[in-house]
Amino acid sequence: MKIGIIGGGAIGLLCASYLSEHHDVTVITRRREQAEEIREFGVERTRHAEIFRADVDAQTGLIGTFDLLIVTVKYHQLQDVLKELSTLPRQRILFLQNGMAHLLDLKNWNTAHQLYIGVVEHGAMKGSDHAVVHTGVGFIKWGAFYHQVKADLSTDLKDVSHYFKMVYTADWKKVLEEKLLVNVCINPLTALLHVKNGELISNTSYEYMMRYAFEEAVTILDMPDKERLWTHVVSICHQTAANQSSMLQDIVKGRQTERNAIIGYLLKKAQTQEIDAPHLTFFNRSLEVLEKRQTKSFE
Amino acid sequence: MKIGIIGGGAIGLLCASYLSEHHDVTVITRRREQAEEIREFGVERTRHAEIFRADVDAQTGLIGTFDLLIVTVKYHQLQDVLKELSTLPRQRILFLQNGMAHLLDLKNWNTAHQLYIGVVEHGAMKGSDHAVVHTGVGFIKWGAFYHQVKADLSTDLKDVSHYFKMVYTADWKKVLEEKLLVNVCINPLTALLHVKNGELISNTSYEYMMRYAFEEAVTILDMPDKERLWTHVVSICHQTAANQSSMLQDIVKGRQTERNAIIGYLLKKAQTQEIDAPHLTFFNRSLEVLEKRQTKSFE
Repeated sequence: MKIGIIGGGAIGLLCASYLSEHHDVTVITRRREQAEEIREFGVERTRHAEIFRADVDAQTGLIGTFDLLIVTVKYHQLQDVLKELSTLPRQRILFLQNGMAHLLDLKNWNTAHQLYIGVVEHGAMKGSDHAVVHTGVGFIKWGAFYHQVKADLSTDLKDVSHYFKMVYTADWKKVLEEKLLVNVCINPLTALLHVKNGELISNTSYEYMMRYAFEEAVTILDMPDKERLWTHVVSICHQTAANQSSMLQDIVKGRQTERNAIIGYLLKKAQTQEIDAPHLTFFNRSLEVLEKRQTKSFE
Repeated sequence: MKIGIIGGGAIGLLCASYLSEHHDVTVITRRREQAEEIREFGVERTRHAEIFRADVDAQTGLIGTFDLLIVTVKYHQLQDVLKELSTLPRQRILFLQNGMAHLLDLKNWNTAHQLYIGVVEHGAMKGSDHAVVHTGVGFIKWGAFYHQVKADLSTDLKDVSHYFKMVYTADWKKVLEEKLLVNVCINPLTALLHVKNGELISNTSYEYMMRYAFEEAVTILDMPDKERLWTHVVSICHQTAANQSSMLQDIVKGRQTERNAIIGYLLKKAQTQEIDAPHLTFFNRSLEVLEKRQTKSFE
């Protein structure tokens, strides 16, 4: 299958590396230098001590036809990509964004493309413009965005590496919601407090605050089975105790966070339903302040 | 009366300006340039459109004898000042710090000095090293730190300007607690959210968060009459709606905040009493992060 991967971040490079074992992969990057680097050196993937070099093509524009396009850019870059995709003939497009805000954009997108949603459960860190470290093996769970779109990717995606299974699920929205819940509990707090994930449960006060965020999120998402979900969130904190959350890493590196994709989505939903979410509102705003590191007074 | 004012910040200059109308005032500054500037230009005070120039002496060391020393430095500079004061012969010393953390330091201070505590209810902003704007007229309420110290300042302090009354109160601790409560409700939130005081009550979510801080603080301080106090906090937000809190100003200007004097004191007290204070703990830590604008990763 001819696969185009839009975005050369950690997830983009990870997908490119694994999928190239069975498919013909092209990474579509924003910067010309990254495309050149990938063409020259391939994509280098490290898992434990093992290094694998994949021959992968790369280009900067959406030229050519693909059997599948995978969009791996962050949510705040999605609008630009959608605009470009609108000019293409009907394609199969799989969206791998974090959070759930992109669902609203896709819903409002008037397009003939066949849309798929995927939830990435891998851990990955970009090492360089052509290198990625696979820090945690998981699945990519995916499904069709509209019911009427036949889930015809299953056959095409069955040939993949043992460490990179693509699993079809009709229940992708539930998977996405559970991931969002974990994200909204862990990400904002670790970023605001500048702590690793494990501290959210080793410090009683922080755990209290996480519980406030949790309560607001499950109410907004109207999720059943609350105590099982809380145990799940706590267990993720345990499993990733020594990790810095992606939002903390973004803050530390001065990058834009996925605040809008994660908290922004929940706050929009809360507003529609007239649900109070003081903690999420507070986290959202104080993250914005931290992002901007505002040093100017009011105008 | 010969009065020495330690500290040339907004409150130091305000005290110097008003007290010099009836007393012989010397400002004791840390920086030589500020002392020189005050000696050359006096202290310029602006209230509404009215400008008043006071002839005030200034020096950099604690030389000479005074009938009263007034310590106006911020809490985080207090330790250095106490060390210097320890070398002096018995004096009357009035402490005007914000928060309540200094009470613990004074309690542990083995000294023969006669100690007084004052609560400043004025609004003041430093314009330059020798200029201050009197933005809000209030009182300085003061009392003796130890019961055995006779409140013998009353007579000496009765001659002051109409806009700068010094009022004796045996109940200074209660006054200090109420001010601390207002501070802990308004200061951390406005600094973290980068909003003016009024937004804490115009935004329902922010008001919820303020209420969480309020509940924890009144529990820690074991204050009765909760609903009256809440009304008081809200009314201060109304009255100062267009103001930037001092903590927000400190964050904006990259200065150290009075976090330790305000939240730090409450958290210490909470710990002693084994009271949970998740919101105050969270505010304290995330303010620390914002202060440092940490951009480095974990070591």
